[in-house]
Amino acid sequence: MGRMLVEAVAGDEQCQLGAAIIKPDDNLLGVDAGDLVGVGPLSVALTDDLAAAINDFDVLIDFTSPDLTMQNVELCRQHGKGIVIGTTGLNSDQKELLAKAAEDTAVVFAPNMSIGVNLVFKLLEMAAKVLGDDADIEVIEAHHRHKVDSPSGTALKMGEVVADTLGRDLEKCAVYGREGYTGPRDRETIGFATVRAGDVIGDHTVLFACEGERVEITHKASSRVIYARGSLRAVRFISDKRSGLYDMQDVLGLK
Amino acid sequence: MGRMLVEAVAGDEQCQLGAAIIKPDDNLLGVDAGDLVGVGPLSVALTDDLAAAINDFDVLIDFTSPDLTMQNVELCRQHGKGIVIGTTGLNSDQKELLAKAAEDTAVVFAPNMSIGVNLVFKLLEMAAKVLGDDADIEVIEAHHRHKVDSPSGTALKMGEVVADTLGRDLEKCAVYGREGYTGPRDRETIGFATVRAGDVIGDHTVLFACEGERVEITHKASSRVIYARGSLRAVRFISDKRSGLYDMQDVLGLK
Amino acid sequence: MGRMLVEAVAGDEQCQLGAAIIKPDDNLLGVDAGDLVGVGPLSVALTDDLAAAINDFDVLIDFTSPDLTMQNVELCRQHGKGIVIGTTGLNSDQKELLAKAAEDTAVVFAPNMSIGVNLVFKLLEMAAKVLGDDADIEVIEAHHRHKVDSPSGTALKMGEVVADTLGRDLEKCAVYGREGYTGPRDRETIGFATVRAGDVIGDHTVLFACEGERVEITHKASSRVIYARGSLRAVRFISDKRSGLYDMQDVLGLK
Amino acid sequence: MGRMLVEAVAGDEQCQLGAAIIKPDDNLLGVDAGDLVGVGPLSVALTDDLAAAINDFDVLIDFTSPDLTMQNVELCRQHGKGIVIGTTGLNSDQKELLAKAAEDTAVVFAPNMSIGVNLVFKLLEMAAKVLGDDADIEVIEAHHRHKVDSPSGTALKMGEVVADTLGRDLEKCAVYGREGYTGPRDRETIGFATVRAGDVIGDHTVLFACEGERVEITHKASSRVIYARGSLRAVRFISDKRSGLYDMQDVLGLK
Repeated sequence: MGRMLVEAVAGDEQCQLGAAIIKPDDNLLGVDAGDLVGVGPLSVALTDDLAAAINDFDVLIDFTSPDLTMQNVELCRQHGKGIVIGTTGLNSDQKELLAKAAEDTAVVFAPNMSIGVNLVFKLLEMAAKVLGDDADIEVIEAHHRHKVDSPSGTALKMGEVVADTLGRDLEKCAVYGREGYTGPRDRETIGFATVRAGDVIGDHTVLFACEGERVEITHKASSRVIYARGSLRAVRFISDKRSGLYDMQDVLGLK
Repeated sequence: MGRMLVEAVAGDEQCQLGAAIIKPDDNLLGVDAGDLVGVGPLSVALTDDLAAAINDFDVLIDFTSPDLTMQNVELCRQHGKGIVIGTTGLNSDQKELLAKAAEDTAVVFAPNMSIGVNLVFKLLEMAAKVLGDDADIEVIEAHHRHKVDSPSGTALKMGEVVADTLGRDLEKCAVYGREGYTGPRDRETIGFATVRAGDVIGDHTVLFACEGERVEITHKASSRVIYARGSLRAVRFISDKRSGLYDMQDVLGLK
Repeated sequence: MGRMLVEAVAGDEQCQLGAAIIKPDDNLLGVDAGDLVGVGPLSVALTDDLAAAINDFDVLIDFTSPDLTMQNVELCRQHGKGIVIGTTGLNSDQKELLAKAAEDTAVVFAPNMSIGVNLVFKLLEMAAKVLGDDADIEVIEAHHRHKVDSPSGTALKMGEVVADTLGRDLEKCAVYGREGYTGPRDRETIGFATVRAGDVIGDHTVLFACEGERVEITHKASSRVIYARGSLRAVRFISDKRSGLYDMQDVLGLK
Repeated sequence: MGRMLVEAVAGDEQCQLGAAIIKPDDNLLGVDAGDLVGVGPLSVALTDDLAAAINDFDVLIDFTSPDLTMQNVELCRQHGKGIVIGTTGLNSDQKELLAKAAEDTAVVFAPNMSIGVNLVFKLLEMAAKVLGDDADIEVIEAHHRHKVDSPSGTALKMGEVVADTLGRDLEKCAVYGREGYTGPRDRETIGFATVRAGDVIGDHTVLFACEGERVEITHKASSRVIYARGSLRAVRFISDKRSGLYDMQDVLGLK
């Protein structure tokens, strides 16, 4: 992910790489970040000391682990640096601390930084609002053979967006498989069809089917570069903000 | 279309069939509308005299021809009846008259009454706004072998919605086919890929493809009943309005 | 189905309607078959007496019920008439009788007369043979909201074709839904993803996903006319045969 | 491509890496092939001298350029080594020489080594044979924004397979775009719909649409690893053959 971020920043017209932080004692310490990813030297040596580099950048992009993220947040807060967080797994205490820190500095927190996926969440809300209970709604997702859980977190979140919009409880209305005699479909349900196959990176379709027509909203990922691209969009978004806690819906102007 | 409307009204909980107008001298004059479509008698005899039936309904649904539509509009205006118009081909004078009449009575005018298609127009606008010039945009449509023009009017309208949102001129940026050496894709273009095959009623997909991800918004029609369903939604929308000119975006709350 | 058959025969250049049999005491007895379906008179009055009409045709198309089918088979056998049977639900005794009758006259027996579906069965066999155990195989099907069983019979048959080709037992390797922690995919399994929504007549896709590529074989039905079209193809196939029991794979030259 | 081949051979149970040839004077000369691709040492040093390594392998995989390929073929012929050729652009003289060499040693020559694509060619032939002139046939393909020619070579080849099967001349029946008034579709045509967008590696669908049903055969590439996988399959195929010129249809048992 670090490499992708360096590459994305290097290719961006509005952003510039100020520092690149890696794990302590990593073999690559001191190597030029640009050389590492093959875009030519960027005059930024890889370092493991965020504090020492704090004046070299305006916004930190953090894809680490919850504890490390919280340390980084505190450092950014003290120095008035913005922070864009793609780390997953923060507990509720940590999220509370985040909200607190956001009173002093600008924070974007988004467990899924993909621009397309966040756009799709909004499209789903709009489709559910318009089609409402006239549509049968089904979520179809496909992932590679190595994925160990079903449906994907993104698929479940899509179901949640739809269920919330329609005032339904996903836990009660979700159907995860159909076998044998099922009877006619209950309109209130939201079905999940899960495909596991090959090297599919991640395809999601939500189908709204009414009498006479269907609307389908689909997202297909082909590379993890989408998280880097989303992070940069978040960086640009908070570059002129002094404080506040934002998510990708804010960044994309979807609220 | 008339049969589909009768059937749709008969199956609707909030609407009731008040009258059913057919062409002068039609063989079916006097037949019960419900019997005609096989839903049992509705106590509404088919008639060719709209003026005589004017007190039997609150809102007229009109799928006729421009001249006849304008006569019907005038009659509805005089009697304060709402009117939902799915007629296509009105010229600019007729549209002006429509706007005038809408000062006295409520009018929904929508050349395409499909709820799904109108929803998709809005989804496209939102997707174009968010993905902007980071995406390559292509419209893929499929219709049956008998369709004589390409791309479909709906596909062109989809392209227009996207082009307008992005400040492009569709006439200049549309590409209708690719053959031989074309060079790399120009981001500003909007491509149209047209399939003509079998009995496909009408499929439309707009693809937004960025580095690492694609968002697709698809509409598939399986029956013309969607125009009847959209008309009824329009009827419910203007049932409590005294005047005003509306389109399906108003009806669906998408403005 | 009877109407579709009449219409299909009327539109066929090589076949001609010789007789049209309906249920005893039906109100339509004596009506011209062509008038009934709106293609103009065909000089064939609807009758309920197959025996009396036995010299008016060369091949009988039978979409009835098992008992009636067996009576018709016997009559055709006695008079050397070919018979094309789309009736489902025959028991093993009846199937044995069928094989017996086929010693004296030509019989096509196919519970699914669709040309496309039968072609797909063959394509699946070929794909499974070539891709073998290098592919993850999943069957995705969609049907309308009123369908009461899952997966569809056709989807299961597709799974069977693949399993048989690969020497697997579908009962043991089929997976009908995925929820929660499932672990990485087991290559031996065949997954079924089932969508129930709107008015979808019947879509089936079988996905073969390998490292780096996917092959998908899809069938989409849009009308029951496909059973009539398949029946006519079967009629043409046995028109020059004196005996033998055939299925659609024979008719289509796929054996 | 070389790296992918090394990786694929390293992961294959039946094949073993005997030698790895790179360009003369390459910086990587002498490096272990396994180390290069990150699978651990394979005791095979990269060399630029094929002649010196000729006794270290049984079959050569050649993805180079026409002239170099012909030199390699001659060397393999002299030493009775099999050769699998994925090089494109051979002229007719070179192809003739290849046929000659194949009298003395086993050669697989396939400009597209993908197993899936070659399987699809066969499926298309079968589908065209069965559906014949009852189907409208359209080829839909999508590739990334950097592709400079349309339609893709693979799409054209798919069209050719179908046209040949049906006795049509693709040059005469191909339609590469539709715009404005086109009239109803001519059954004899084969349509090509071309999408250029984002980073799509390569999607191809051939649609056969009849009255009431559609059959679609789709190939989606997600990585160039498919050429390495196909090459290995070809290696296994000729490992027990002493002579003969083969293509991927032979390798896959599709003739």
